[in-house]
Amino acid sequence: MILDQIKETNDIKKIPQEQLPELANEIREFLIESISKTGGHLASNLGVVELTMAMHYAFDLPKDKIVWDVGHQAYTHKILTGRKEQFDSLRQYKGLSGFPKREESPCDVYDTGHSSTSISAGLGYAHARDLRGGSEHVIAVIGDGSLTGGIALEALNNASAIKTNFIIVLNDNNMSISKNVGGLSTQLGKLRTTNFYTNLKKKTLNSLSKIPGVGQPIIKGIRKTKNSIKQLFIPGMFFEEMGITYMGPVDGHDIPHLLSVFQSAKHVEGPVVVHVLTTKGKGYSLAERHPSRFHGTAPFEIETGITGGSAPGYTDIFSTVMRKMGERDPKVVAITAAMETGVGLKRFHNMFPDRFFDVGIAEQHAVSLAGGLALGGMKPVVAIYSSFLQRGYDEIIQDICLQNIPVVFAIDRAGLVGSDGPTHHGVFDLAYLTSVPNMTVLAPKNIWEFSDMIKFAINFNGPIAIRYPRGAAYDKLKEIRNPIEYGKAEYIQKGQKVALLCLGAMVKEGMAVLDRLKQSGIEATLVNMRFAKPLDEAVCKEVAENHDIVVTMEDHALIGGLGDLVASFYVENNLAPKHFVRIGIPDQFIEQGSVPQLYKECKMDADSVYDAIMEKIN
Amino acid sequence: MILDQIKETNDIKKIPQEQLPELANEIREFLIESISKTGGHLASNLGVVELTMAMHYAFDLPKDKIVWDVGHQAYTHKILTGRKEQFDSLRQYKGLSGFPKREESPCDVYDTGHSSTSISAGLGYAHARDLRGGSEHVIAVIGDGSLTGGIALEALNNASAIKTNFIIVLNDNNMSISKNVGGLSTQLGKLRTTNFYTNLKKKTLNSLSKIPGVGQPIIKGIRKTKNSIKQLFIPGMFFEEMGITYMGPVDGHDIPHLLSVFQSAKHVEGPVVVHVLTTKGKGYSLAERHPSRFHGTAPFEIETGITGGSAPGYTDIFSTVMRKMGERDPKVVAITAAMETGVGLKRFHNMFPDRFFDVGIAEQHAVSLAGGLALGGMKPVVAIYSSFLQRGYDEIIQDICLQNIPVVFAIDRAGLVGSDGPTHHGVFDLAYLTSVPNMTVLAPKNIWEFSDMIKFAINFNGPIAIRYPRGAAYDKLKEIRNPIEYGKAEYIQKGQKVALLCLGAMVKEGMAVLDRLKQSGIEATLVNMRFAKPLDEAVCKEVAENHDIVVTMEDHALIGGLGDLVASFYVENNLAPKHFVRIGIPDQFIEQGSVPQLYKECKMDADSVYDAIMEKIN
Repeated sequence: MILDQIKETNDIKKIPQEQLPELANEIREFLIESISKTGGHLASNLGVVELTMAMHYAFDLPKDKIVWDVGHQAYTHKILTGRKEQFDSLRQYKGLSGFPKREESPCDVYDTGHSSTSISAGLGYAHARDLRGGSEHVIAVIGDGSLTGGIALEALNNASAIKTNFIIVLNDNNMSISKNVGGLSTQLGKLRTTNFYTNLKKKTLNSLSKIPGVGQPIIKGIRKTKNSIKQLFIPGMFFEEMGITYMGPVDGHDIPHLLSVFQSAKHVEGPVVVHVLTTKGKGYSLAERHPSRFHGTAPFEIETGITGGSAPGYTDIFSTVMRKMGERDPKVVAITAAMETGVGLKRFHNMFPDRFFDVGIAEQHAVSLAGGLALGGMKPVVAIYSSFLQRGYDEIIQDICLQNIPVVFAIDRAGLVGSDGPTHHGVFDLAYLTSVPNMTVLAPKNIWEFSDMIKFAINFNGPIAIRYPRGAAYDKLKEIRNPIEYGKAEYIQKGQKVALLCLGAMVKEGMAVLDRLKQSGIEATLVNMRFAKPLDEAVCKEVAENHDIVVTMEDHALIGGLGDLVASFYVENNLAPKHFVRIGIPDQFIEQGSVPQLYKECKMDADSVYDAIMEKIN
Repeated sequence: MILDQIKETNDIKKIPQEQLPELANEIREFLIESISKTGGHLASNLGVVELTMAMHYAFDLPKDKIVWDVGHQAYTHKILTGRKEQFDSLRQYKGLSGFPKREESPCDVYDTGHSSTSISAGLGYAHARDLRGGSEHVIAVIGDGSLTGGIALEALNNASAIKTNFIIVLNDNNMSISKNVGGLSTQLGKLRTTNFYTNLKKKTLNSLSKIPGVGQPIIKGIRKTKNSIKQLFIPGMFFEEMGITYMGPVDGHDIPHLLSVFQSAKHVEGPVVVHVLTTKGKGYSLAERHPSRFHGTAPFEIETGITGGSAPGYTDIFSTVMRKMGERDPKVVAITAAMETGVGLKRFHNMFPDRFFDVGIAEQHAVSLAGGLALGGMKPVVAIYSSFLQRGYDEIIQDICLQNIPVVFAIDRAGLVGSDGPTHHGVFDLAYLTSVPNMTVLAPKNIWEFSDMIKFAINFNGPIAIRYPRGAAYDKLKEIRNPIEYGKAEYIQKGQKVALLCLGAMVKEGMAVLDRLKQSGIEATLVNMRFAKPLDEAVCKEVAENHDIVVTMEDHALIGGLGDLVASFYVENNLAPKHFVRIGIPDQFIEQGSVPQLYKECKMDADSVYDAIMEKIN
């Protein structure tokens, strides 16, 4: 195995160039084998094996800085920087991160997770290099999907400001997570198919680079004549018009070709885009055919691609209810930001293509588009993950809440999400939503309540958000299904001494706490809060008056969460109970792990909550 | 006066076309006269007089929807829709808003204030129209400066999805508030100067439109042939590559020309950009020469342009200290988003051009750029207004705090800003910053402390934000200048019974409360909190133990503010004082007005605070 020779950074440079394709195959096999066991991002990583190898070969790590966008495609980079042996712990508690992590390696220079930031961060690195008088190369790798995100376009627009070398590798697989949308995508598609220019450039570069000691100066010489360089790299008018040199498109699975283009790119003064065409899922036919399905995958059987079955999650309920609501009311429209499958809108899309808007990775635009749609008479439902919706924060304030426009935010992946780790945990949404006037925020205890809440929200006359977690949906407490009333909490059990005020997913955890307390002879009260905003002050008051201990439970950061709202209400109204405990996420970023592991770490699991209560009692 | 005939919407259509230039002059005179008395946005409004008139003439309001971007340029639109008589109350308490307001007129279809949202909102309106089977036109007006904002580019990328008429008016004055930056600006500059094409198009359109009853069908015919339309409107390759028809550039002060282009634009199927060239400040020579100075202005003397003197504000202190810090430490770099003058970085820019980055209206990019710069060894200071920084929220979490990178956020215009109203009040920053792990948040009581805090922040090893208000800086309490210590509050006065925990600007208000209390025989305690995060729990505990009433005072939304943090600390630690009062902004959007008026409305003024305290005492 050639791969066995790769033990640390730059070991790849000891491998003869002609053995690199074989090494690529071995890396692919390793990735498929390894991810089939742990789960993880497969298709995107299979797509960039040669690209990553070529970058490690062409550049000088860790001196040169490679900034990966999103970062879920950095597995080969991790293998080439001595982390292969850690892949059995990939995305697991205390294990190897699924994203670049500065603390893991000096070759990881920027932590990512959300898309479209690599050009900005790279530009920062490049400007800093120039101010320091450094000479290292800075390379920002960005996917064509990420390029539709506002910050990437802001950065592209700004890139022309830099007069020194700054390389943007555009990894173009014609996908983001779902299929790409928009004018930019069409434009890239045109570039992709300009075989004439590709071949022309290929031939020119090839012949030039074959002349030892002469080729590079000639390429440099050509570069000085603007007309000539335009002839050499003509398809990238879009980038050239932004003031960025364009090179490509290059076959992203052709290592010699990639190496020669990177050599050229190193000598460009100013920003240069290297447009690389890759195939998502390359080398694993199931992933090539179904790249979306193998974007992020659970452990799977390699031969069939089949993953273990999983219980229906809130996303499935959302999918079903949206389809029904779409049938019932022609005004219902749905918006997603490149997450059609992730948020469960595929069926809605198929049934109501005119009323479905996938705006690409463009959360800000998604929110304001919803504003216009609502004012135009529609009932928009914006379905975006909790942590991604952070991108639309200003628009939620300015465009939706300030105008008090009825828009529904379906906030999937709220709370701790598990193996995707800190960039994906949805633990700030209460802080950024409840503080905004006119906003209503709900969270369901179980699948039936979620269904009721969606219907309630679509018929609500103002901005409204429902947050719900990733993973299997709670399917107990079916018998408790009171109609949703604005701002009203619901008693699950009335008891004494201890009252648990649980939000959404924490009702399930609260039920386990009830059991534990019962074993200690305490029949406690459990309230399903339903609304994080407005707070049901009457119920809060009631439990404070009738219990010694009031506990708020939320899968959210303690600062800015439900507990703070309840605390303020209590202390300002002289209602403070004898003891008050806030259960939630402490003021630190929570790493990856299974949700139960993370609950334990945050002392949000039933045992920890029970202990916290007993400590107060004794 | 022709202007006297403009009493309500569409009155302009009764004016013969040849009298329109005269009407434009009268509107300009009215604007200069009126704004010289009230203050307001001058230069941008003088730039779009003819453009607005032409739109009102060409389109059918309120059926057709004009979405103004930012909205500070909508004064002529307000005049033409029957609001001329309200201009003496412009931007004043309960007066005419400086921005479009749906509640003011059915012709205002989208409330704005922040930039770059009009294409998104307009697209929403257009899609809704199509779903309803409507026939109205939707026109999004956007400035060239706003076009660099990520959401505008997201929306442009998405615009190609619409197959029906959607008009984007690009109001190109080669300015945002400061001068524009970036590749896009250079590209627009090229278009602007392609006189050959302009003249060609001008002649073609002119000759065509002169043939009555025949010109329009010919134009239509030409449009069907893609090659011909390209010949007619060739300079807009950038837009054409995004899948958007391009028309222009058009002289934005030439009404007949504008009218004919709008007639053509109405018939384009799909999105069309009408590129209009305007002169910011047009017709008032002082504003033409100094458009930045007359962007937003205080009342001024028309002849000289001189405004009343104003006391130095925090922005001035920031300007001075940044210059000094720049001299002292070559690693200090400064970043602004199109607000060089507004945030006070002009001098820094002049002295250290290589270490100054104006990224244009691109707050997300500004934040991540700072991340890269910091990791590259620099000490970046990102100066952005509180409400605009909302755009960079996700990047603050993911790029800065998660990586615990030392970046300083200088947050100007925190708290209530006055006449700019709800879109500009900086009243959510504590909610969106204190909930993020690793973030430190400070607020200065006066000018000396601000200076100390900037120095403290630049030398701090982690993400840190200083929030400070608009307007005159507090210049009392010079004698109390304890060194800044991480997480430590400072006693201004130690007393009894009542303790005021004041954050930043509220120390000044708290001093007035102390006076009032003294008159009632109460020597109260006043604490300058300094840090909103981390909370000085020791001081909070101390005052709770020694006083009957603890009052938190902050110029921030009550939900998610300092008061909530203090309340949670108290109730969770069984420290709740006898009475606890939170002073701050209630859960509603606060309109425009002078800061004292708004403080009164929010019961944050000394009198109201005093009353609230006395109510608890009695």
